[in-house]
Amino acid sequence: MNLNIALLPGDGIGPEVLAQAVKCLQAVEETFNHQFVYKEAPVGAIAIKKKGAPLPDNTLKLCKEADAVLFGAIGDPKFDNDPNAKVRPEQGLLKLRKELGLFANIRPVQAYPSLLDKSPLKKDIISGTDFVIYRELTGGIYFGEKKLNEEGTIASDLCEYSEGEISRITHLAFKAAKTRKKKLTLVDKANVLESSRLWRKVVTKIGESYPEVALDFLFVDNAAMQIILNPSQFDVILTENMFGDIISDEGSVIGGSIGLLASASVGEENALFEPIHGSYPQAAGKDIANPIASILSAAMLLEHFDLGEEALAIKKAVDKALKKGIVTPDLKPKSQYGTNQVGDFIAHNI
Amino acid sequence: MNLNIALLPGDGIGPEVLAQAVKCLQAVEETFNHQFVYKEAPVGAIAIKKKGAPLPDNTLKLCKEADAVLFGAIGDPKFDNDPNAKVRPEQGLLKLRKELGLFANIRPVQAYPSLLDKSPLKKDIISGTDFVIYRELTGGIYFGEKKLNEEGTIASDLCEYSEGEISRITHLAFKAAKTRKKKLTLVDKANVLESSRLWRKVVTKIGESYPEVALDFLFVDNAAMQIILNPSQFDVILTENMFGDIISDEGSVIGGSIGLLASASVGEENALFEPIHGSYPQAAGKDIANPIASILSAAMLLEHFDLGEEALAIKKAVDKALKKGIVTPDLKPKSQYGTNQVGDFIAHNI
Ligand SMILES: CC(C)[C@H](C(=O)O)[C@@H](O)C(=O)O
Ligand SMILES: CC(C)[C@H](C(=O)O)[C@@H](O)C(=O)O
Repeated sequence: MNLNIALLPGDGIGPEVLAQAVKCLQAVEETFNHQFVYKEAPVGAIAIKKKGAPLPDNTLKLCKEADAVLFGAIGDPKFDNDPNAKVRPEQGLLKLRKELGLFANIRPVQAYPSLLDKSPLKKDIISGTDFVIYRELTGGIYFGEKKLNEEGTIASDLCEYSEGEISRITHLAFKAAKTRKKKLTLVDKANVLESSRLWRKVVTKIGESYPEVALDFLFVDNAAMQIILNPSQFDVILTENMFGDIISDEGSVIGGSIGLLASASVGEENALFEPIHGSYPQAAGKDIANPIASILSAAMLLEHFDLGEEALAIKKAVDKALKKGIVTPDLKPKSQYGTNQVGDFIAHNI
Repeated sequence: MNLNIALLPGDGIGPEVLAQAVKCLQAVEETFNHQFVYKEAPVGAIAIKKKGAPLPDNTLKLCKEADAVLFGAIGDPKFDNDPNAKVRPEQGLLKLRKELGLFANIRPVQAYPSLLDKSPLKKDIISGTDFVIYRELTGGIYFGEKKLNEEGTIASDLCEYSEGEISRITHLAFKAAKTRKKKLTLVDKANVLESSRLWRKVVTKIGESYPEVALDFLFVDNAAMQIILNPSQFDVILTENMFGDIISDEGSVIGGSIGLLASASVGEENALFEPIHGSYPQAAGKDIANPIASILSAAMLLEHFDLGEEALAIKKAVDKALKKGIVTPDLKPKSQYGTNQVGDFIAHNI
């Protein structure tokens, strides 16, 4: 297969971990006889520095033309504590999601048997956990109108959803549930929010066309408890943008390391793959960042193009690295393996 | 001391657990020679049924006249899945918070040594956990304008904050931090939301008048991870209404049972005390609900009026019940003790 892949390394540890994912894709090309073409472009804080904008036009163009985008990480603390900053790195990612129409962010959460000990949760709580979060990604409070009065004393953000925005991701989530454990849980705050009540109405309606899938509802505050108390109760979790941001990061602790979790963001025409961890600037350039989440995003990219065997080859190589302890220090305190060595090991085992 | 206490049992298990808290207050009256007067009024689903409104005028009047409100629980699933319901039980609680000006919800989170085994988290993760969440309670998306277009296809909620709303709770939180471990963490989403940026600006400014308190910031998605990965890093967490709802319920899992956690909601002139658990309708009337959270809300009420010794007497009696295993089945699977017996035991030990 021929694939044009846009590479967006971004900030902090983004470039280092993305480089390992590319190594693995190159190994897949060789082993399975594919042709991938990689083109790189800046995004985030580095793009602000180089081009004055977090998502330069050329970067967006490259992404639109590519078959898929492989993303590193974004963010720089310099901007976070400056309430007056006019441009912010995150705007680059948000604009990219919107422009590419990436309305569904898909985050699998699993307990790796070889890592049960790393989890802050007890073994009997997490074993058997295997769920996937469908987070709406281009609507809600992230994209609603933002206001600040002239005096700078009143600020607001609007959380708005339309039936169409809800229904397209809902269909994806139900379809996923059909191929899995046939359970879908909508997470909302319908006892308080009008937008949540619309979600509940639309999802209930659509649920009627998927009679084989059991549908239930959880308020987001309760969901934040249930994910820790009893994570194996879940199969597919469907939720709006902001709630999805919070509970999917929360869910990431189950496996014992956020450095393992990948995500896919998909739309009608485009798809982007990225680790769920952030840019972790304290670790940048030190060859200590865990590249596995980025490598597993490359596996998700392959799955997206129905290259299941190829994706499996990556996952098996990752499992091998985990079992053999060829991992970065976040997973094994005094590990002598760095980002590059872990990447090399996994690529060589494909 | 003479105190007028408004009792609002509410829905589900509310009445049962509140009755145990009253037993304990009566024991305090006797032992310490105080005079408390109790007046009861309906709120929530039961008030809708009896009076047609979730917060009848008489209930509000009673609360305004009282020195403090002791609250049970609210909510009935009948309303949750009906997007067209015109009145909802939760509106009663929200209106009460607004009308009484209860702008700060204070939720202590602690790991009880005698319950370390009940937690889904590992012992070494939770031991030493002792933080308190200051959640803004009368602003933000809970109270902003709600809209639904005529066709019922577009819904929105507005999250708005003013400098004044932020600053009054911020001062309370800094004052609390001064008497504790001198650390305050603001939880927000300043990389995306305008309202969060206003929070960060106002809190940073106010922080300058509390130089002895170390101030730091966490994005809410990261906070949702940190509370599980390393809960003992926190001292005082300050946050807006919706984020506070989510992370305080999440924090409740640390101690091993949400049935133990109480909260105080305070304003300039009024104060309300309630367990953080919900109305748990499945358990209502079965004499199995854990009354400890409600009993500990009574202790928070006493502390609010500087009756520290009295509050301590309740807490010690609760500790005794926990150590002796005089607890409901949620804490000890085949426990033969019911709600009433646990309440009696604690009251008798005051
Ligand atoms: C960087 C930030 C804007 C982003 C988000 O909140 O969506 C990130 O936290 C994520 O979840 O992908
Ligand atoms: C019942 C509900 C409206 C309420 C809230 O979300 O504030 C509850 O969850 C709480 O946290 O007190």
